[in-house]
Amino acid sequence: MKEYLRDTGENDLVERLTSLINPSADVVIGPGDDCAVVETRNDAKNHLLLKTDCIIEGIHFLPDTDPEWVGWKAACRVLSDIAAMGGTPGHALVTLAVDGDREVSEIEGWYRGMERASREVGEFVLVGGETASLPQKGALISIAMTGSVPRDRFITRSGSRPGDWIAVTGKLGGSFRSGRHLNFRPRLSEGKWLASLEKSLRPTAMMDISDGLSQDLPRLADASRVPGFIIDIEQVPVNEDSDLRSALGEGEDYELLFTVPSAAREELVSRWKDAFPDTELTIIGRMKEESERTELEGGWEHFRSGN
Amino acid sequence: MKEYLRDTGENDLVERLTSLINPSADVVIGPGDDCAVVETRNDAKNHLLLKTDCIIEGIHFLPDTDPEWVGWKAACRVLSDIAAMGGTPGHALVTLAVDGDREVSEIEGWYRGMERASREVGEFVLVGGETASLPQKGALISIAMTGSVPRDRFITRSGSRPGDWIAVTGKLGGSFRSGRHLNFRPRLSEGKWLASLEKSLRPTAMMDISDGLSQDLPRLADASRVPGFIIDIEQVPVNEDSDLRSALGEGEDYELLFTVPSAAREELVSRWKDAFPDTELTIIGRMKEESERTELEGGWEHFRSGN
Repeated sequence: MKEYLRDTGENDLVERLTSLINPSADVVIGPGDDCAVVETRNDAKNHLLLKTDCIIEGIHFLPDTDPEWVGWKAACRVLSDIAAMGGTPGHALVTLAVDGDREVSEIEGWYRGMERASREVGEFVLVGGETASLPQKGALISIAMTGSVPRDRFITRSGSRPGDWIAVTGKLGGSFRSGRHLNFRPRLSEGKWLASLEKSLRPTAMMDISDGLSQDLPRLADASRVPGFIIDIEQVPVNEDSDLRSALGEGEDYELLFTVPSAAREELVSRWKDAFPDTELTIIGRMKEESERTELEGGWEHFRSGN
Repeated sequence: MKEYLRDTGENDLVERLTSLINPSADVVIGPGDDCAVVETRNDAKNHLLLKTDCIIEGIHFLPDTDPEWVGWKAACRVLSDIAAMGGTPGHALVTLAVDGDREVSEIEGWYRGMERASREVGEFVLVGGETASLPQKGALISIAMTGSVPRDRFITRSGSRPGDWIAVTGKLGGSFRSGRHLNFRPRLSEGKWLASLEKSLRPTAMMDISDGLSQDLPRLADASRVPGFIIDIEQVPVNEDSDLRSALGEGEDYELLFTVPSAAREELVSRWKDAFPDTELTIIGRMKEESERTELEGGWEHFRSGN
């Protein structure tokens, strides 16, 4: 029986493709986390982070979206993944695949948006790229980025333990209607600050929320092999222009989702308030030994029909 | 007046986009060469190479192309760029953008092809990637790769001087009809060997031939600011199943094109024969102070109408 992509969940697919890949000694974290982490030869202090991401016209932006915000989004999605490891951005490569009927000024707008993201958010440097022509109408922008992270200080998805508190930054929901899916600011300073905390306070696991809390929290739990979690739905921070359903399932929030050692809750929350007085930090639940998980509606899974 | 991509040459476009990018102190070679070269902090020996490339269904491969050769080609195009710098491959990130009506087995075939390229040609390690769904029928595979190169031994496009000899590896032409555009072996060992030669013999400039000699040689000359070149057309090595027109203009040969210091010709050719007895090395011409350039027909420039 033939199996088509539309019937396959992204999680399944990534797992199956990953199994085709040979492991290697210098790969600290391979596929499946926000970034890959690899050993840098001769560098005793830092690991290299590697991440690629792409946005597509008609899905992640529309033909009439302001080109500068398109470029901003393309860059900031990758920066958000580097933030989720506690890393610092390095160098970026851009791949554009576009039809020939496109105005050059639009493409220059994308580049200006990326350049602005580099200046205002995370100081990555564009070092090259590739332009290819699509045989049909459409546009795709793919950005691959390096980053660096202290060897003993990066945060993965897989370190959470039963009893850890579940925390999110900022507020969730309504990113598409409000335009936040375009003009969000990735939590780079926050991610780096969290990773720099002493071990007793440092998050045990972290990721960014791109597909919605209802999709991403189970991913974090699965990666950490923690059977269950309980969420206090009333605690989930919802944007004023949105609702709970969106906050759980819409996605593209680009906030940080992380788990806090059981004993660290109070101290971490208090230090956070001093460090980031303008950014909310909310404890929304707890990781559990038991296999029950609070049901969270919605969420976005690529390829599945009906999304 | 509006300007459209189809009326803009790739060379022009890359130059204009590059001018929007802020320079940075740790970028040794930025956009415009086969790979970017950046400083690796704390690594006194090596620079980091960065390269991204993509292939598109309907342009670089067809719907009925064997998926393993599609994956092979996607990986080997990037390896060929790393070869052209004299580098060693490192880690790779893969971005797939495909419609949902695609069989999962095809995608697994692409991955098997990439994995085989890693095993048989250049030992890069796949560390992650991204799958995105295209709103229309189609497929795009983009691979970003790191590499490493000794700090004082990489070869750019820009070091050629008047009087240098022009050399190519292997034979040119006929890559599409023969299937060589899919199953070629990038010249990684040769590139590394050339970069390891003592300075008096080492190529002054190098690139791989992807768009055809008639497009790529002028690029090398322009990058090196050498006004002219003369090619002995009869010396251009043509594949037995092809013809001169294809050898000059068809592209996707993935052979190395490089320039040899004027006094090094004999010694280099003789050492090459010992090192690579099965691979031809042909001197096809010479770089010139005068601005005349031998006319070479054809060649492939992306986006231009009529190609």
